[in-house]
Amino acid sequence: MKKYDAIIIGGNPAGASVAAAVKQFYREKKILVIRREKESLIPCGIPYALGTLERVEQDIKPIKPLQDRGIDFIFDWVTSFNAQEKTVETESAGTFQYEKLVLATGSEPFLPPLKGRELKGVYAIGKELALIKEIKDEMIGKENIVVIGAGFIGVEVSDELKKHIDHVTLIEAMDHVLPLAFDGDISLELEKTLESHGVDLLLGKMVQEIRGQEGRVSEILLKDGKTIKADMVIMAIGYRPNTDLAREAGLTLGQTGGIWTDEYLRTSEEDVFAVGDCVEHKDFFTRKPSRLMLASTAASEARIAGMNLFNIHVIRHCKGSIAIFSSSLGDISMGAAGITMAQAKKEGFDVILGKSKGRDRHPGVIEDASDVTVNLVISRESAVLLGAQILGGKSTGEMINILGLAIQNRMSVMDLSIMQYGTQPLLTAGPGVYPIVAAAMDGLSKIRD
Amino acid sequence: MKKYDAIIIGGNPAGASVAAAVKQFYREKKILVIRREKESLIPCGIPYALGTLERVEQDIKPIKPLQDRGIDFIFDWVTSFNAQEKTVETESAGTFQYEKLVLATGSEPFLPPLKGRELKGVYAIGKELALIKEIKDEMIGKENIVVIGAGFIGVEVSDELKKHIDHVTLIEAMDHVLPLAFDGDISLELEKTLESHGVDLLLGKMVQEIRGQEGRVSEILLKDGKTIKADMVIMAIGYRPNTDLAREAGLTLGQTGGIWTDEYLRTSEEDVFAVGDCVEHKDFFTRKPSRLMLASTAASEARIAGMNLFNIHVIRHCKGSIAIFSSSLGDISMGAAGITMAQAKKEGFDVILGKSKGRDRHPGVIEDASDVTVNLVISRESAVLLGAQILGGKSTGEMINILGLAIQNRMSVMDLSIMQYGTQPLLTAGPGVYPIVAAAMDGLSKIRD
Repeated sequence: MKKYDAIIIGGNPAGASVAAAVKQFYREKKILVIRREKESLIPCGIPYALGTLERVEQDIKPIKPLQDRGIDFIFDWVTSFNAQEKTVETESAGTFQYEKLVLATGSEPFLPPLKGRELKGVYAIGKELALIKEIKDEMIGKENIVVIGAGFIGVEVSDELKKHIDHVTLIEAMDHVLPLAFDGDISLELEKTLESHGVDLLLGKMVQEIRGQEGRVSEILLKDGKTIKADMVIMAIGYRPNTDLAREAGLTLGQTGGIWTDEYLRTSEEDVFAVGDCVEHKDFFTRKPSRLMLASTAASEARIAGMNLFNIHVIRHCKGSIAIFSSSLGDISMGAAGITMAQAKKEGFDVILGKSKGRDRHPGVIEDASDVTVNLVISRESAVLLGAQILGGKSTGEMINILGLAIQNRMSVMDLSIMQYGTQPLLTAGPGVYPIVAAAMDGLSKIRD
Repeated sequence: MKKYDAIIIGGNPAGASVAAAVKQFYREKKILVIRREKESLIPCGIPYALGTLERVEQDIKPIKPLQDRGIDFIFDWVTSFNAQEKTVETESAGTFQYEKLVLATGSEPFLPPLKGRELKGVYAIGKELALIKEIKDEMIGKENIVVIGAGFIGVEVSDELKKHIDHVTLIEAMDHVLPLAFDGDISLELEKTLESHGVDLLLGKMVQEIRGQEGRVSEILLKDGKTIKADMVIMAIGYRPNTDLAREAGLTLGQTGGIWTDEYLRTSEEDVFAVGDCVEHKDFFTRKPSRLMLASTAASEARIAGMNLFNIHVIRHCKGSIAIFSSSLGDISMGAAGITMAQAKKEGFDVILGKSKGRDRHPGVIEDASDVTVNLVISRESAVLLGAQILGGKSTGEMINILGLAIQNRMSVMDLSIMQYGTQPLLTAGPGVYPIVAAAMDGLSKIRD
């Protein structure tokens, strides 16, 4: 029986990041990654593999850099593991012995029990190379594609499909796109942008049924009785954690169905860790269980597990997970960190909104300048930053990370109003109107009202 | 005699930010800004006013937004102020009474006592509209321009001049460009980029004399005896604080020649504040007096002074000033925060370097992806981040602000290695290789060696 110091099941962002961190911190340890696919995609690149990128294969994440560092890979199905005997059983490669085991089994698309979902031409955005190639091959030449669900994947896929397809319809049951990440005023701007790109939006609409002819999808029936022509349907409702292996091995699951772990991503079984989408996270503000599924969250957790696998080296300050998202519709980009005004109120926080509007270069006539809007969700009495939403240019991706870091450090808008930062004409807003600080100042002045 | 609650002398980034903050926090207060120019330039936009921007006037910062909020402006010279009688004397507009006075008198170019500096065609980069228009008018059609000093202004001006001028030579006495902001390996890359744009670099060279014919500059004589043809010379050696008014009024000056202030930017005279380039700052790490002159630093200080002008509302956590710079040569951008390896060693810190190299989009084939290098200067025992240098694409401007915020929060590379962040294909690096975290991990693994 082959023996490894660490075995990692799953090799996408979470699994790969665990392997890299273990190798960096425990150089002598023997590490094996077991995953199903020889070539696997960068998950967040999948919408772009369907549109912007010429070939789906351009989104493959190479594993050679990890192999070059001495990490072993095998491509196989794990059928079970035994936490008492510390063994992993695979379909073809036999049994392996581990000292430490890490589950990075990820998530798979959630398919609601909709009538017609088994019809040909109905897809969900999974993460397998073969599936995404099939979707791309099939979509080319189609006239009408319907996307169900306007979360990040639904929005990004719709916008990308529109680059190839005449009629793309995006259906969302709630009143706005990206309802979990943004409050209404920002969502409105995103909706305008999607519509200007030619995506048809149907908001506040529920799907009743997917209808077909001769086994193949032909239209969508809405609850209000309307129908929409559909040569192909893409469901982007959400994902659920892959926990079969964990459950069968007797690991404790959390309230949301993800694998329960402690602060250091240790499961209920000794020497078994779990990271990423398959894990139940804790909310940063409320410590409630949460079902956040982001590759960046997975990678952060993977590092905590990886660095602490054989001893706890990096002490975690008992923080929970913050949702930090960003996305781009090309001409407009958006980012969100922490909680929205709507969520904050629902959770019982007394909040105010700090706002700023400006440009992301100075003077604003610089060629690639974009408008930037920053909204900050602020606890009224404590002045602590709870959330942030940005609409802007390409630098939105890093600006939202500034605010994410501010939230992690439990900074108040007082701290942010006097924060130090750099500005430069070709790269940022002007020094006197730096948008993060301007929004903090606005919030502060409202607290004083 | 006209009376104002607050009078601000100087209306560039520092003065304008004070005025805005006072108005936002004390709405009923009457505020007057006295400055020399009716139309004044965004200082950091000046290099681009000489190159990229078609007209110098495009770099003018409008004051109408401030006037619309009820802030008065007069354009005049202040000849003196009296801290006992709380009066300000102007050349044309008479005497004004203040309750609180803020000096935002800025800085002016430092001209070394070089032989020939009085010749026609020799300029320093001041901030006055008329001067910059004169430089732009005169440079057009010149064949050989020499820039002396490779700090940010010298580097940016050289790169911008090259867009119009055949031969641009940049002379620096130290061995690398931007020697105060970057360590050698990053500077080398910047030097390659400048050279690829056609700028001739002369590093480690001292200027002996500026030579002329008939009162007009014709060449530069170096200390090593070589000469360089020069139809025009631009000196970018540095700036010194404008403190004449303050000194004449008896205010205490600091060791570096700037106006001494306390944590809240209060000078040695009651009810007189000072902010920005005219002030002596304290270094964040050593608390030594420092001569940092950045518009963004000025704007941060301006907010502290403005919000605390009539009462202290926003408590400062006894932090000093961090240098946070960024700049761009178009195809390559760079940022620096905190101190360099060289400065850290000189100050006696025991430091190691954490490094990462990657791409700022994922997959790296995304159209506008750039390489990104992150270098972190880390205190070996405490693991605290002391400095950071980035070479990358346009998002460098905000990425360096992330690291600036990390330094302000005295974060360690342990904290950074498990920080939460968002990633997105079109906006950032991939989740597993996010460059800031990758550099922190590299630093951590070296600490363990």
